[in-house]
Amino acid sequence: MKALVIEGGRLRFEKNRPLPRRGGEALVRVSAAGICNTDIEILRGYMGFEGVPGHEFVGSVEEASAAALIGRRVVGEINCGCGECDLCRAGMARHCRKRTVLGISGRDGAFAEYLSLPEANLHTIPDGMPDDVATFVEPTAAAFEILEQVPVKPDDRCAVLGDGKLGLIAAQVLGGRCKVTLVGRHAAKLAVARQLGLRALAQNEFREKDFDVAIDATGRAEGLAAALDLLRPRGTLVLKTTVAGETRMPFARVVVDEITIIGSRCGPFEPAIEALTRGTVNAAPLVSGRFRLEDFEKAFARAQEPDALKVLLYPAGAP
Amino acid sequence: MKALVIEGGRLRFEKNRPLPRRGGEALVRVSAAGICNTDIEILRGYMGFEGVPGHEFVGSVEEASAAALIGRRVVGEINCGCGECDLCRAGMARHCRKRTVLGISGRDGAFAEYLSLPEANLHTIPDGMPDDVATFVEPTAAAFEILEQVPVKPDDRCAVLGDGKLGLIAAQVLGGRCKVTLVGRHAAKLAVARQLGLRALAQNEFREKDFDVAIDATGRAEGLAAALDLLRPRGTLVLKTTVAGETRMPFARVVVDEITIIGSRCGPFEPAIEALTRGTVNAAPLVSGRFRLEDFEKAFARAQEPDALKVLLYPAGAP
Repeated sequence: MKALVIEGGRLRFEKNRPLPRRGGEALVRVSAAGICNTDIEILRGYMGFEGVPGHEFVGSVEEASAAALIGRRVVGEINCGCGECDLCRAGMARHCRKRTVLGISGRDGAFAEYLSLPEANLHTIPDGMPDDVATFVEPTAAAFEILEQVPVKPDDRCAVLGDGKLGLIAAQVLGGRCKVTLVGRHAAKLAVARQLGLRALAQNEFREKDFDVAIDATGRAEGLAAALDLLRPRGTLVLKTTVAGETRMPFARVVVDEITIIGSRCGPFEPAIEALTRGTVNAAPLVSGRFRLEDFEKAFARAQEPDALKVLLYPAGAP
Repeated sequence: MKALVIEGGRLRFEKNRPLPRRGGEALVRVSAAGICNTDIEILRGYMGFEGVPGHEFVGSVEEASAAALIGRRVVGEINCGCGECDLCRAGMARHCRKRTVLGISGRDGAFAEYLSLPEANLHTIPDGMPDDVATFVEPTAAAFEILEQVPVKPDDRCAVLGDGKLGLIAAQVLGGRCKVTLVGRHAAKLAVARQLGLRALAQNEFREKDFDVAIDATGRAEGLAAALDLLRPRGTLVLKTTVAGETRMPFARVVVDEITIIGSRCGPFEPAIEALTRGTVNAAPLVSGRFRLEDFEKAFARAQEPDALKVLLYPAGAP
């Protein structure tokens, strides 16, 4: 099969990679896959991953032990726990210490014609959901994780920092639950935010403070301190940025103002599928490019342009 | 009155400082006051405070509008809110933006013969509680703040990092609620911890991981990363260290493992008074020195020795 492969810190196209068969798992033919900031961080060395990257996908099941799954269009949860350890038994399989993670750790991912995942990780999607939209289920689930961690109330003022893909999705997810302001640095992306009905402000014009909740979705190490700066005493900072390395944190502010900082990663798929089906999260305006797998260099270059949002890869060859 | 005064980054003894009278407040004659790490940080420039330091005290009320208070032995909450702003009205007077804080910000403190505090800040203490012990009410309240912020369960494994005063008190406070391990670097202090019935281990011998909760009470900027290192996925880190400046934080660990970091400062006085009365928190073994106010140089030198725990000042002159 065709696949993109990271080896020795470089991404290359491979024409005849063997099918990723794993005993007891489903084989999924990938229709479309999204490039995430994490993929770009992985290329820069984050996680030390080698193999096929990619973890946002939609596809159809070609092989599975559950007959009902075969031929169905699916998206998939990316963490595969061992099912036996203390964390798996405590309902934290996404945090299993022996886990593999699709396209991120120990398991080939979605930038290929086929991928393998445990059947329990798969979620069928409505027939009417376009492939483009379905690739957003995984990042939308990550945004819903915020609601699992922070019990926001309708009057809460929430700032989402970062006008990238995750910021735009998180702002839509939170928009239904509290008062959201999106803060960004890119005019084009802020225009998309406004088109989505969001209150969106440019960072250099933005003077508000005293938010109850601030989400760092900047993807930059400086995001933590910037988000801290927006919070009221006893406010909550949700950290979504995953970059390699460390960041500086002002100690005294966190302690004196009793700030809570919550790291937030993957989330629940069902509310994400529902939100994308109903359109309470509108993903279509976030697509900035569609490429064949063979054109991965153009695709990754486009994904890293300042105005780019989601760039999609089509392993079947027909965007 | 006699007082210690910080001015231009130096601490000096003043023999004839005017009494700290503030309209509508109580005038308290200080019997004993404890030197806190925060006082030492303040001397190094933290908070930019000038005036009389000191915020852990016991004394007797000499003047007050409430007749019932006069002559009573009291301890006092250190934050004085405006009573009118959004935070005060929301029950967060300890976080009032206009607040003054005894001996820390905008208000002379306890290293003096007299101090002034709003009557609402004062708590009477049982007759049988010695002055030495009563000076521990404020830091013990700060330890009880942890229980207000983190709902620990009896089976939770909690690591307290730091064998200093706050660590030894926090470990006792948490000890009644969950499984506590104190981790420190000083043999003499670890011996005190064991004398208090605590499970206490030296940091360089300590290999355990996967704690549900870790408290950073090290008083050092490196404490955050060390405490992070002890936590299981989705664990909680309580940050008690107040030092000037910044610390480095490993981003990916916090996000990938969905760690919660909670800044924690002052806490409730009533459970602290009760715990010190009942002896569930035993403070007496934590006293490392008693000095007259005039001997402040010796007192501060003693407080900064590696084996020192709490050093007390006696403004009335008779330790």
